[in-house]
Amino acid sequence: MRTAVGIDLGGTFIKGAVVDEAGTIITKDEVKTLAERGPDDILRRIEELVRTLLKRTGIELADCAGVGIGIPGFIDTVTGVAVEVINIGWKDVRVREPLTQSLGLPVYMENDANAAALGEAFAGAGKGSDSAFCITLGTGVGGGVILDGKVLRGASHMAGEIGHIVMFPGGAPCNCGHRGCLETVSSATGVVRLARERIMCGEMTELQSENLTATEVFAAAVRGDALAQAVVAEAAEVLGRGLAIGANIVNPEVIVVGGGMARAGETLFQPLREAFARYALGRVAAAVRIVPALLGNDAGVVGASKLAFFP
Amino acid sequence: MRTAVGIDLGGTFIKGAVVDEAGTIITKDEVKTLAERGPDDILRRIEELVRTLLKRTGIELADCAGVGIGIPGFIDTVTGVAVEVINIGWKDVRVREPLTQSLGLPVYMENDANAAALGEAFAGAGKGSDSAFCITLGTGVGGGVILDGKVLRGASHMAGEIGHIVMFPGGAPCNCGHRGCLETVSSATGVVRLARERIMCGEMTELQSENLTATEVFAAAVRGDALAQAVVAEAAEVLGRGLAIGANIVNPEVIVVGGGMARAGETLFQPLREAFARYALGRVAAAVRIVPALLGNDAGVVGASKLAFFP
Repeated sequence: MRTAVGIDLGGTFIKGAVVDEAGTIITKDEVKTLAERGPDDILRRIEELVRTLLKRTGIELADCAGVGIGIPGFIDTVTGVAVEVINIGWKDVRVREPLTQSLGLPVYMENDANAAALGEAFAGAGKGSDSAFCITLGTGVGGGVILDGKVLRGASHMAGEIGHIVMFPGGAPCNCGHRGCLETVSSATGVVRLARERIMCGEMTELQSENLTATEVFAAAVRGDALAQAVVAEAAEVLGRGLAIGANIVNPEVIVVGGGMARAGETLFQPLREAFARYALGRVAAAVRIVPALLGNDAGVVGASKLAFFP
Repeated sequence: MRTAVGIDLGGTFIKGAVVDEAGTIITKDEVKTLAERGPDDILRRIEELVRTLLKRTGIELADCAGVGIGIPGFIDTVTGVAVEVINIGWKDVRVREPLTQSLGLPVYMENDANAAALGEAFAGAGKGSDSAFCITLGTGVGGGVILDGKVLRGASHMAGEIGHIVMFPGGAPCNCGHRGCLETVSSATGVVRLARERIMCGEMTELQSENLTATEVFAAAVRGDALAQAVVAEAAEVLGRGLAIGANIVNPEVIVVGGGMARAGETLFQPLREAFARYALGRVAAAVRIVPALLGNDAGVVGASKLAFFP
């Protein structure tokens, strides 16, 4: 079976894995990103990680289909340049050409959210489907659309940005500069904000405003805390409507929900599925299943490897 | 240059055209649908129309790439069956097989809204683009997404249904059974509804509630009627937000706006573009142009012909 290397470049760690064509990880490892040392150093460390992983599996460079890299920012897949990667301070960094040269392997790039979406669609919760809408519920809400095994990139590599669809004009401010985006409500940040607003209004709760996390809100909802339950219901309602909007447009076979907040399990998924059914067209709802992501932190490296198998 | 025949099956007329590979209509004609005579009769009349059009141009059946048909309902492109076509009372009508047999040509089917979208993307306002989101503002709001020259069908042939994204939970009832869909506000029907509501509330206007049309509302807005201007502003604001939502997800190169209401021109397009810019992500807005449809009633036959050129 063919193999490829998937790399997931993050703000703190560079993760890497040798993956086979079925999406199974053969070996994986990670090294520190050390962004402060600059792009050349990071690219050198990526090169070393690829060589180390391949050596460990006994796979010759020549037998490897290539290297796929997920990058947490705005990239240009035509020129192979990372245009803007705020997390690690990159601006117009050439990635593909130097790595192709140093490794002697084809190198492919993708935005990290899209790479993770591709991983779930390829070998995770969306395995076997022709179309998947994958979202990640974390600090924000990331999204990626996979059609026939390929990332839908769009005209400026922005497709799938469901976190920034405006659900509430004039609503809470969002990092993107607009107001009332989906992620102002249905992200970990949104859940904490909603809970704090209610606490400030004097609603009864066991929760404390200070250092509050979304995990605590979901846990309190399970224990029957009324404020927490109202917040979870609101976040799920808005997410369900947002996903119904996305599904009416893309009509996917599967919606994969991942990220830290998805760990709340049925506490989130049950009201989410109910809200989705209230807002999606009948034939859209009938064709789709809403499922939790399966690959966790491995989605990025698995998806990145897929880029090399089927560029 | 190769040619194909495009057919646009409507409730009242069956339109047909011989179209060349550049999307230019060589000849066109139409016959009555006469839905009451049943499916066999309609299929026979489609066959006749194809033969008449080809004979007129002197093109041999054997030199024709095929026949594409746009059908105003829910179709199954795998089996070649029109599953449900409410307008003409069809239920599970086999279309592709009998027509392929009688004509001796390959026959392709598409939903009529998707066929019209394909026409605009292929040879109309979206010509030359890799991705287009095409909408039709009429009684309702139809939509179709074209990626790399192909219709995005989705898992159950429902992709692009932007008319039914829920903008206002609990809003005005929609034909789809939900409430607050985009088309309850930003369609001809929606514009008339908004105007009537304001007239009933006693707002000053030159408009009469009875037999009111969207065309009259737009004309009154141009003449400075305050009520009409408020209605146009509201419809454009909601449409702009809806299209921004669709664009954040699909990230198209071009958004093509057609249908009767698009004839209002800049009275609609100017506030529409302003609203879009308020709600779309910056990189999404920068990559897209919002343009009026160019092909009018010919979009359906031109798009249907495209199905035969590049099935």
